[in-house]
Amino acid sequence: MNSLVKVIPLRWNDFDVLGHVNNVRYFEFMQDTRVALVEKMNLSKADISEIGHVVAHQEIDYLKAIPMNATSVSVRIGVEKIGGASYELSYEISDGQDLIYAKATTVMVTFDVKSDSVVRIPDNIRAALETYCK
Amino acid sequence: MNSLVKVIPLRWNDFDVLGHVNNVRYFEFMQDTRVALVEKMNLSKADISEIGHVVAHQEIDYLKAIPMNATSVSVRIGVEKIGGASYELSYEISDGQDLIYAKATTVMVTFDVKSDSVVRIPDNIRAALETYCK
Amino acid sequence: MNSLVKVIPLRWNDFDVLGHVNNVRYFEFMQDTRVALVEKMNLSKADISEIGHVVAHQEIDYLKAIPMNATSVSVRIGVEKIGGASYELSYEISDGQDLIYAKATTVMVTFDVKSDSVVRIPDNIRAALETYCK
Amino acid sequence: MNSLVKVIPLRWNDFDVLGHVNNVRYFEFMQDTRVALVEKMNLSKADISEIGHVVAHQEIDYLKAIPMNATSVSVRIGVEKIGGASYELSYEISDGQDLIYAKATTVMVTFDVKSDSVVRIPDNIRAALETYCK
Repeated sequence: MNSLVKVIPLRWNDFDVLGHVNNVRYFEFMQDTRVALVEKMNLSKADISEIGHVVAHQEIDYLKAIPMNATSVSVRIGVEKIGGASYELSYEISDGQDLIYAKATTVMVTFDVKSDSVVRIPDNIRAALETYCK
Repeated sequence: MNSLVKVIPLRWNDFDVLGHVNNVRYFEFMQDTRVALVEKMNLSKADISEIGHVVAHQEIDYLKAIPMNATSVSVRIGVEKIGGASYELSYEISDGQDLIYAKATTVMVTFDVKSDSVVRIPDNIRAALETYCK
Repeated sequence: MNSLVKVIPLRWNDFDVLGHVNNVRYFEFMQDTRVALVEKMNLSKADISEIGHVVAHQEIDYLKAIPMNATSVSVRIGVEKIGGASYELSYEISDGQDLIYAKATTVMVTFDVKSDSVVRIPDNIRAALETYCK
Repeated sequence: MNSLVKVIPLRWNDFDVLGHVNNVRYFEFMQDTRVALVEKMNLSKADISEIGHVVAHQEIDYLKAIPMNATSVSVRIGVEKIGGASYELSYEISDGQDLIYAKATTVMVTFDVKSDSVVRIPDNIRAALETYCK
């Protein structure tokens, strides 16, 4: 099983009036880690232009606030489940050590770009996803 | 039962490379509607400085992409459940007519600002929340 | 002379740790007002796909912080100068009354989308811009 | 003369519908580099809580679009001028090699936090700034 951890430096604008990272920004961290996963799975340009991956569902549990003195977060991503035309990613957002800030999941759905309709995950993408399954 | 609908004009930067509203931004719309709800419930300054409301969990189902020609979204918010020290808000993000873009929920937890510990929802806040229950 | 004022509701995430609207966000307000101007000038789709308008230079003077209790800003935009292949827009960001938060300008350059090279402002766009000159 | 270069990884949401980094985001990159400069000058907490630094003016020249395949930008910051109660920072945003995307400046004004009035730059801050002068 492969795994991917992306370290994301925090920006001044990630913090809100209350002095911690705003709840919305966590989804940016997840998104950037998801993009890194797609790149590391080395899906060809052809895959991406023919098969789209769309976010269908997201869930997050906020466990600990990310304080002003944090300079980065660490996001571990894995593939939780692979279905016929969808797959579920899971994330653990932490300080890179033992402090977990949040746990989250995203369900992605594959669709055919030309017909704009849901389509079965192609075999090469399925194989790439499987290498990141827990 | 009261209800609240907030119309949020879209900004150029809500849209991403793919030409529709980015999945992260939906949580901004929910946040701004939640803030409007708190204001409309007319919670006194005292409540807010003594009792904090923190986002503990969020879930969203994306149903339809919000296209480039959309100029605003309409967010209907309601109180779904009230527990001992938490409550659940629900949202429907739409075009203001029949087209629903997404459905979502947020679980908020109340805590005592001074001791930074979870605290039972005070009676006046509970009463205010109840007027927005379905 | 025509003029355009766009009222932009503030979002929770426009405010930063210091409790006022973050300096970066002013450029979002200017951008959204600029987009509204283009739409009001009623430039046809053909114009936009053939002629691009790119931001070449921006300047801003921050005069007064926008405080937490502000709920919207008012942006007045006008055309300051029209050159051969560029034009300058000016903005006044205020509370809609007498309180001016910032004054700013943007220089836009026109270019031919196909050849990706700077191009003289077409006559119909020039005529549209002139109606917004001071 | 000291100098500081901050490498900022780009995020998916830095890119807009047009497929390059949005003009507004450059000011976030400048802001984060400015914050890094303040930290590296090692100003004590006391300085920051007593003396505020507020953005008074900004200017930018966009030279080259930052394309989709860019993964980070490099921001070189320096102190351009030091006045009585203000100082000017300059930035060069590049690919870390020879390709300069933008050049920009920010004028900062110092003020006394307690009285909220403009105040002469204290000697220790002036000395710290001077080490970054060109």
